[in-house]
Amino acid sequence: MEFDVRVSDAPLAAGERERRLAAPGFGVVFTDHMITIRWAEDRGWHGARLEPYGPFTLDPATSVFHYAQEIFEGLKAYRTDGGEIVAFRPQANAARFNRSAARMAMPELPPELFLQSLELLVGQDRDWVPAAPEHSLYLRPFMIATQRGLGVNRPSGSYLFCVIASPAASYFRDGVHPVTVWLSEDYTRAAPGGTGEAKCGGNYAASFAGQQQAVLHGCDQVVWLDALEHRLVEEMGGMNLFFVYGSGPHARLVTPPLTGTLLPGITRDTLLKLGPDLGIPAEEAAVSVAQWRKGSASGDLTEVFACGTAAVITPVGRVKGPAGEWTVGDGKPGPVTMRLRDELLGIQYGQRPDPYGWVHKLC
Amino acid sequence: MEFDVRVSDAPLAAGERERRLAAPGFGVVFTDHMITIRWAEDRGWHGARLEPYGPFTLDPATSVFHYAQEIFEGLKAYRTDGGEIVAFRPQANAARFNRSAARMAMPELPPELFLQSLELLVGQDRDWVPAAPEHSLYLRPFMIATQRGLGVNRPSGSYLFCVIASPAASYFRDGVHPVTVWLSEDYTRAAPGGTGEAKCGGNYAASFAGQQQAVLHGCDQVVWLDALEHRLVEEMGGMNLFFVYGSGPHARLVTPPLTGTLLPGITRDTLLKLGPDLGIPAEEAAVSVAQWRKGSASGDLTEVFACGTAAVITPVGRVKGPAGEWTVGDGKPGPVTMRLRDELLGIQYGQRPDPYGWVHKLC
Repeated sequence: MEFDVRVSDAPLAAGERERRLAAPGFGVVFTDHMITIRWAEDRGWHGARLEPYGPFTLDPATSVFHYAQEIFEGLKAYRTDGGEIVAFRPQANAARFNRSAARMAMPELPPELFLQSLELLVGQDRDWVPAAPEHSLYLRPFMIATQRGLGVNRPSGSYLFCVIASPAASYFRDGVHPVTVWLSEDYTRAAPGGTGEAKCGGNYAASFAGQQQAVLHGCDQVVWLDALEHRLVEEMGGMNLFFVYGSGPHARLVTPPLTGTLLPGITRDTLLKLGPDLGIPAEEAAVSVAQWRKGSASGDLTEVFACGTAAVITPVGRVKGPAGEWTVGDGKPGPVTMRLRDELLGIQYGQRPDPYGWVHKLC
Repeated sequence: MEFDVRVSDAPLAAGERERRLAAPGFGVVFTDHMITIRWAEDRGWHGARLEPYGPFTLDPATSVFHYAQEIFEGLKAYRTDGGEIVAFRPQANAARFNRSAARMAMPELPPELFLQSLELLVGQDRDWVPAAPEHSLYLRPFMIATQRGLGVNRPSGSYLFCVIASPAASYFRDGVHPVTVWLSEDYTRAAPGGTGEAKCGGNYAASFAGQQQAVLHGCDQVVWLDALEHRLVEEMGGMNLFFVYGSGPHARLVTPPLTGTLLPGITRDTLLKLGPDLGIPAEEAAVSVAQWRKGSASGDLTEVFACGTAAVITPVGRVKGPAGEWTVGDGKPGPVTMRLRDELLGIQYGQRPDPYGWVHKLC
């Protein structure tokens, strides 16, 4: 598809951009441009544009404000030591975006258009890709329902796809710190037949109450359990969980299987391949709260970490729940956790070999 | 709270308004004005306005587009034979709005401010309240998250409350018709610990795929079953269900209990009181798919209907599901269904006594 390229005549001055890049926080500073593509029942995808970053003007009766048909992706552009700007497995994000779209009765976007959007935006705003170690340009492709009307018997008849970009520092400002998690029995994230596999806004809206409860209990993050019995571990906040059993040459990884209620994380999928390559067997298997507690007590379970695009890999040091609390390993970031983290970041920043061709040059 | 009243200097001409009122459809025509009130962490609710109906201007990184913190209500303003304009139990909508807000980690709105908003808007746009039988002005109070930023660890720090109004014809244009429903086993609406009780956008976004599946099976509406076993009947689309056992003086009503996964419908609650007043006992009890099928076959189950604000009462004539299909009663709107419908509409339009003080004068 041909994009209508409308370059901003008032980009941020270089000095001010550098000032913002120095301490960007997460998701609050945005680049000079954005991508927009529209979809209508009678026209399909049309009107693709690169244009100056700017507000949407939407009628109050627009569907997205009432019935939340909205999906998104999150991925990063990395500046490699070689001066290239790359993304990590963006095809996987494009594919997941379309699976989310299908679940939410929204139109699928051709994957090549998804990738073209990223390449065009990052190419235009390449000066916004940070050079500092572990910094990146976070890319946020999303789609919202734009039909005006309050009927609920059918999905919206029009949509807007948009990509915005936000420079991001390392999630951990002063070294990797383990988090304390709350096992939520009052709130659930997803159930069979629901939207747990989709990266849709409603899953996140539903999660804030559980996250607030975790904070009230002195924890950093909420861990979701299965909706049916509160027995099996599913996810941590918006991240997948990995359990490390044993240590040294006997270390092995276990992560809950994709039963339909978990988000199919791309970092999760990557670690399932990367672990074995590093001599750490990895399997998908259900993990119960009881197993987590017993394994921590016996020492069989040595490390636990969460993984996702934003924070990469986050060690879990301590667990609290209605039935008690315990420490994982010695409560500090473990060697398997940190080795996987280094390896993954190394590939993403072009410092390690990339045997699977995961790294995709954007510009 | 004092409202800043900004009356439109370009309201729709009376002739054009009457033309739109003659065939309004549902939720596509809007009045000349709207209410907006803002909330910020450091200021609470502020900036209340009545202003000309018009678009929102929102940054692409606004929370509502990504994490779907959005709740709404639906109620109607009726023009009575006596010339008053009234609402039906608006205090119940205000209370439910706040329960939805609490679940979604959004700020609660003082109920008097909710009511004041309705009175002010309907007072200003009173010429938009239709006079035709069974027509009404549908009121849509809603709240959206307006903070700019992509962080997911805490809820939005600012919100916009808004009320818009849309004239609505009777849901049934040419008499009451029974619907055919599809029992969904592939999709679920809500699970324990989820957001089923909240009137939040995410529940509706999640429902479109199930509704589309129902249409593919030649049905009008989807019926949701419990997420754990697909055994118990929960809701129909966005409406509650009632089952009528027996007939004549032996008729009695059964509706599924509010287990936490069902929307606590105000029409549902009203019928639980209205039924007994009319000599039709009503109880809350679980109804399984097997009971529904067996009751229909034996004739013990005589009528089934769905209820909600938009369509009031909708008879269910036929049921289809993966395990077969059957007819309810003779497949036609039953006498209990129609009697309850007449009674309820009679109270809402001021034609019947209102012993519980349900009718609230707006202007």
